[in-house]
Amino acid sequence: MRLATLHSGTPDGKLVVLSHDNLRFLPGPTDTLQSLLENWKEESASLAALAQRLDGGEGEALDPSSFLAPLPRAWQWLDASAFITHGRLISEAYGIEMPATDPPLMYQGLSHRFLAPSEDVVLRTQDYGLDFEGEFGVITDAVPMGVSAQDALAHIKLVVVINDWSQRAFTMSEMKRGFGWLHAKPASAVAPICVTPDELGDAWADGRVCLPLHITWNGELFGRPNGREMDVGFHDLIAYAAQTRDLPAGTIVGSGTVSNADYAQCGSACIAERRAIETIATGNAVTPFLAFGDVVRVEACSDSGDALFGIIEQRIVPFDK
Amino acid sequence: MRLATLHSGTPDGKLVVLSHDNLRFLPGPTDTLQSLLENWKEESASLAALAQRLDGGEGEALDPSSFLAPLPRAWQWLDASAFITHGRLISEAYGIEMPATDPPLMYQGLSHRFLAPSEDVVLRTQDYGLDFEGEFGVITDAVPMGVSAQDALAHIKLVVVINDWSQRAFTMSEMKRGFGWLHAKPASAVAPICVTPDELGDAWADGRVCLPLHITWNGELFGRPNGREMDVGFHDLIAYAAQTRDLPAGTIVGSGTVSNADYAQCGSACIAERRAIETIATGNAVTPFLAFGDVVRVEACSDSGDALFGIIEQRIVPFDK
Repeated sequence: MRLATLHSGTPDGKLVVLSHDNLRFLPGPTDTLQSLLENWKEESASLAALAQRLDGGEGEALDPSSFLAPLPRAWQWLDASAFITHGRLISEAYGIEMPATDPPLMYQGLSHRFLAPSEDVVLRTQDYGLDFEGEFGVITDAVPMGVSAQDALAHIKLVVVINDWSQRAFTMSEMKRGFGWLHAKPASAVAPICVTPDELGDAWADGRVCLPLHITWNGELFGRPNGREMDVGFHDLIAYAAQTRDLPAGTIVGSGTVSNADYAQCGSACIAERRAIETIATGNAVTPFLAFGDVVRVEACSDSGDALFGIIEQRIVPFDK
Repeated sequence: MRLATLHSGTPDGKLVVLSHDNLRFLPGPTDTLQSLLENWKEESASLAALAQRLDGGEGEALDPSSFLAPLPRAWQWLDASAFITHGRLISEAYGIEMPATDPPLMYQGLSHRFLAPSEDVVLRTQDYGLDFEGEFGVITDAVPMGVSAQDALAHIKLVVVINDWSQRAFTMSEMKRGFGWLHAKPASAVAPICVTPDELGDAWADGRVCLPLHITWNGELFGRPNGREMDVGFHDLIAYAAQTRDLPAGTIVGSGTVSNADYAQCGSACIAERRAIETIATGNAVTPFLAFGDVVRVEACSDSGDALFGIIEQRIVPFDK
């Protein structure tokens, strides 16, 4: 199943169910995606019935400009760093000790706002080193404290694509202070369509999204690393997060920048990683961070060309107070 | 004005306005505190009228067992470490470099749940080094990105008392990994009554709550440090947080553990600080962390004995899956 949230004048938007070609929709079984996630079991029959009606050709034509993020705000956003190649490259380039990745690296991120897939990214200054981070993510229903990784799989209700915007001017200094990231991590953007894991077919395996994530910067392909290489699956990340807390329905868990061992072939999902590769190779990072007017596009298609999650495509614009 | 949220069977509870003796209430002008914070300006006349009716003797008798946290869940919880004495003691005791405090230290905390003031604290194990942290906090309306500290003062709508529960077994290892705190910071508890700054009289000065915070552990006074010694005021903390983001209405900003230079006289607001003082003095920390069955109480009264925020009093209990 494919779900999306459309603009409706309310902060949480209006939930819709989409046809498999992403062209038609019917109103969801609940008003909002948050409400569906809180009542997934009770609503699953209605959801299946709506999907069937869409398969039968029903539904209204979709206006892509009305997409919000699937959850325009969420009660929790936990972002990991589950691609070890990324950590290794950054550590090597900047001479910092590679942090242990068992247990996984994960931070509590800003969750009161997720940018719509075509919403401008508003910056006060270009000097903060704005960077994209292409990621996969999952959205859970309510997860009890102490859940096992195996049991966590069933709590993964939806899969998403994320651009975790990052301000590199703050990354290292905030890491060193030990309090985690605040200014380094402004609001992320989410691709318009979230899909149930079964929608991915064989591309959903062992709690991982085994698809390339295409990142385009001003029309040029920047990278297409595959989600298959996650060191741990999303179910492991959920079990890790739930070690000491319940997770509320609507928790979004991110993979961190997708990164592959054959980065020389497939490129990177963030500028920081390319700069690290440049630094390791030549001692100098030459690729700049983003500037006003730049456009970044993130998408993940199936092998057969199915657009699946739809497209994040955003422009960087100056803050006009 | 004094506001509280009572149990109503819904996640966000029911907003009430309280009399100045904390004994009577009238239903709030909006259903929830979150909704009031989103519409503060529009609702301020209704709010004042309710307070006046309470001053005239109207209102229903309050049942303190029905208190939830003022915001049982919030879109954002930003906790600072704004008492330099605390940072100095911890750094000296454990031989770690004192992090720079300009800009202020602040982390993004778990905000999907705030414990009710008399709710049990449920732990899977005593081995995580559970500790209390007595703090003051403020709740804002919507704050625009780039706000000045001076302008931020007007966005402080309410003042609260917080017990920022902490699991010390994770504190240092999570700091070292650079991703901030996840397991070190489970859900915090909040005292039942939140007050407008004017309710504090002279005790609200320069964006600080100039009152002693009383911490009692199993009936014994543990500390009573004063909020006056904050290095920066809450308005400075808000301006710092808003440097790169809008803050949504209902953002809670915490002071961090209240800590005073004369800690030998006034004690501490967390066990970690007392253990640091012991370590500096003798090389050994002797005070243990909390155990199942322990009861911790946090409160801040006015000089004249007004209970103001009411009482947080919680027991530590084992998780029974």
